[in-house]
Amino acid sequence: MKVYLDNNATTIVDPEVKAAMDPYFTQIYGNPNSLHDFGTECHPALRKAMDQMYEAIGARDEDDIVVTSCATESNNWVLKGVYFDLIKNGDKDHIITTEVEHPSVTATCRWLEEQGVRVTYLPVNQDGVVEAHTVRDFITDKTALVSIMWANNETGAIFPVEEISEICKEKGVLFHTDGVQAIGKIPVDVIRAGVDFMSFSAHKFHGPKGVGGLYIRNGHPLTSLLHGGEHMGGRRSGTLNVPGIVGMGKAMELATYYLKFEEEHVRKLRDKLEDAILEIPDTYSVGPRENRTPNTILVSVRGVEGEAMLWDLNRAGIAASTGSACASEDLEANPIMVAVGADSELAHTAVRLSLSRFTTEEEIDYTIEQFKKAVERLRSISSSYAYMPDNMKDKQ
Amino acid sequence: MKVYLDNNATTIVDPEVKAAMDPYFTQIYGNPNSLHDFGTECHPALRKAMDQMYEAIGARDEDDIVVTSCATESNNWVLKGVYFDLIKNGDKDHIITTEVEHPSVTATCRWLEEQGVRVTYLPVNQDGVVEAHTVRDFITDKTALVSIMWANNETGAIFPVEEISEICKEKGVLFHTDGVQAIGKIPVDVIRAGVDFMSFSAHKFHGPKGVGGLYIRNGHPLTSLLHGGEHMGGRRSGTLNVPGIVGMGKAMELATYYLKFEEEHVRKLRDKLEDAILEIPDTYSVGPRENRTPNTILVSVRGVEGEAMLWDLNRAGIAASTGSACASEDLEANPIMVAVGADSELAHTAVRLSLSRFTTEEEIDYTIEQFKKAVERLRSISSSYAYMPDNMKDKQ
Repeated sequence: MKVYLDNNATTIVDPEVKAAMDPYFTQIYGNPNSLHDFGTECHPALRKAMDQMYEAIGARDEDDIVVTSCATESNNWVLKGVYFDLIKNGDKDHIITTEVEHPSVTATCRWLEEQGVRVTYLPVNQDGVVEAHTVRDFITDKTALVSIMWANNETGAIFPVEEISEICKEKGVLFHTDGVQAIGKIPVDVIRAGVDFMSFSAHKFHGPKGVGGLYIRNGHPLTSLLHGGEHMGGRRSGTLNVPGIVGMGKAMELATYYLKFEEEHVRKLRDKLEDAILEIPDTYSVGPRENRTPNTILVSVRGVEGEAMLWDLNRAGIAASTGSACASEDLEANPIMVAVGADSELAHTAVRLSLSRFTTEEEIDYTIEQFKKAVERLRSISSSYAYMPDNMKDKQ
Repeated sequence: MKVYLDNNATTIVDPEVKAAMDPYFTQIYGNPNSLHDFGTECHPALRKAMDQMYEAIGARDEDDIVVTSCATESNNWVLKGVYFDLIKNGDKDHIITTEVEHPSVTATCRWLEEQGVRVTYLPVNQDGVVEAHTVRDFITDKTALVSIMWANNETGAIFPVEEISEICKEKGVLFHTDGVQAIGKIPVDVIRAGVDFMSFSAHKFHGPKGVGGLYIRNGHPLTSLLHGGEHMGGRRSGTLNVPGIVGMGKAMELATYYLKFEEEHVRKLRDKLEDAILEIPDTYSVGPRENRTPNTILVSVRGVEGEAMLWDLNRAGIAASTGSACASEDLEANPIMVAVGADSELAHTAVRLSLSRFTTEEEIDYTIEQFKKAVERLRSISSSYAYMPDNMKDKQ
């Protein structure tokens, strides 16, 4: 049996999405910016896709959704755009983010520090979230932007974006959220959340790779990352990726359609898996379930290296992860485990299991069986676990 | 009959390319950065695609080809990367480009001027090319980069990249070329050409939209445009667009395979079309044929607005263009016509016809017939042409 439980890294393209994209490669292939029929015949599909996106996140006509190539581009765009608008060519000097953002936020912030920007990296609490009040504590007159994710890729922990956006509004500071792990998993309403910018990426919700977007409240001005022609209202140049846009629109529509299924069915399967894993002695999961996306578990198995676990699962046909695929070649301690206060040994044992609406109960039952087998096998050969005093075994 | 003669704007995806991409949406969908089998099972296809790209442009192992989302991204990356490396954080202050680059180069240069960069926009001669010696005349000790296209999107004019790169090498200045209109149309050998950077875009040579690349000689350092994870050797972050990369690789392989066909068959059809158009009185094409990509004609029909011509052709099912699709909503005089010295009236009459290997002789015969009809009809209702003194009619 092959079981894909790495849906926070990427997802299968929904066959309905694939079917929606298919005509736009070899049949309807014009450049939508061209004036002739080959160009204009893709306009209805593009308009429909944009409507699907606006609808899915509750954006209003006066807001912009700009299609990009991925959330990494969207995140780079917001951070660098604000840098040029308010810092390099303005009087601000400060950005607030967290210690647990996606590398595309963190690496961009590190680079902005080299350009002279002050960056505050807020820590998370033991549940893996940033508490809203800490944002208030660090905002100054010089703060240009707060950039905090909606839901964490590794733990699924949901951040208090509504509270944070209220604080930002009160202080007159722009608020960007990386919504990559939220869309399709929890309700995302950009107006209720009050965010100024939100990044997203189609391949995280059963859309194609290579296309994402940036929501911009009220069409707020933002220096372009990609200068050029008049595409996307002059905000993001480059020939429109017609099949990608059509696919992302369809995928966002389906994400909304399946939200209840995600909330009920996927959560039930996730909880079944998590319960079974937590029955194994000396295992821990990060963050309370009710404040997590319904599809995610980050679990620690004392005495078992995360990578070893991953290989045993892989041998059984099960795809899991030790952390973000964007940093998966890095075999260091899991930073989120360190951030939530796990000891150094435990921080090396994290395994992330992330489900999707394509995950079946049969797959979960098989995974439970294989997970238990792997723990048993790996603990039996683990020098550290075997000799660990009993009174140490139950401490996180 | 429907005839697509706007291949410089975008191209149909070759069905072979589509077939190569197809499995990577719903069957092989893992994130190539993941360590499990779902991630690694796409590695062979990615390696093959990268090999196809290296082979197609003659890149060496020590060079980098970095996949981007389009040539607009590649062009922005080079210009802004060099800005950060050598101008903002260095002692250079100057970039040389031309008056006829793609908007993604020109608009980026305009924006860099706002950041304090000096930019020289070299003019083209009446054949639509920049003469290499003018580059030498403008390089100073402060010049960071020369960015000059390989072939022009509107005229097909081929620029002397080899000579220009020699001058740049001699002067110790980096040389970037926008190769978008060259690949698949003329032989492209980055080593022989001696360029440091070359941009390209898959959808211009029968690959998919939303994927392009940047060739980087010897892995030359260049500040990233997209910071983040470790993708593409840390040079360009964002989850790899697996189907896009596979499609671009296949499209580049096919571009090389069909190069002789392009050079002989497509050129023959283009010449047939051009000959027929030039038989109509008071028509002109820009630039000598032997120095143009084999698929392109930019033609002027005195007394007939380019847009009017485009509409008549469109009504007959033929897709042409009045210029770059990246600025096609702009009904001003064609800048390239102005640049090659056409008078103001003639500059409004340009129509671009761009063929591909999918163009048939039957389509060309039909186009000739319809083109002649359109000229006749439009001239018969043209106030300017009817009353034009005979001795004016034959002057460009």
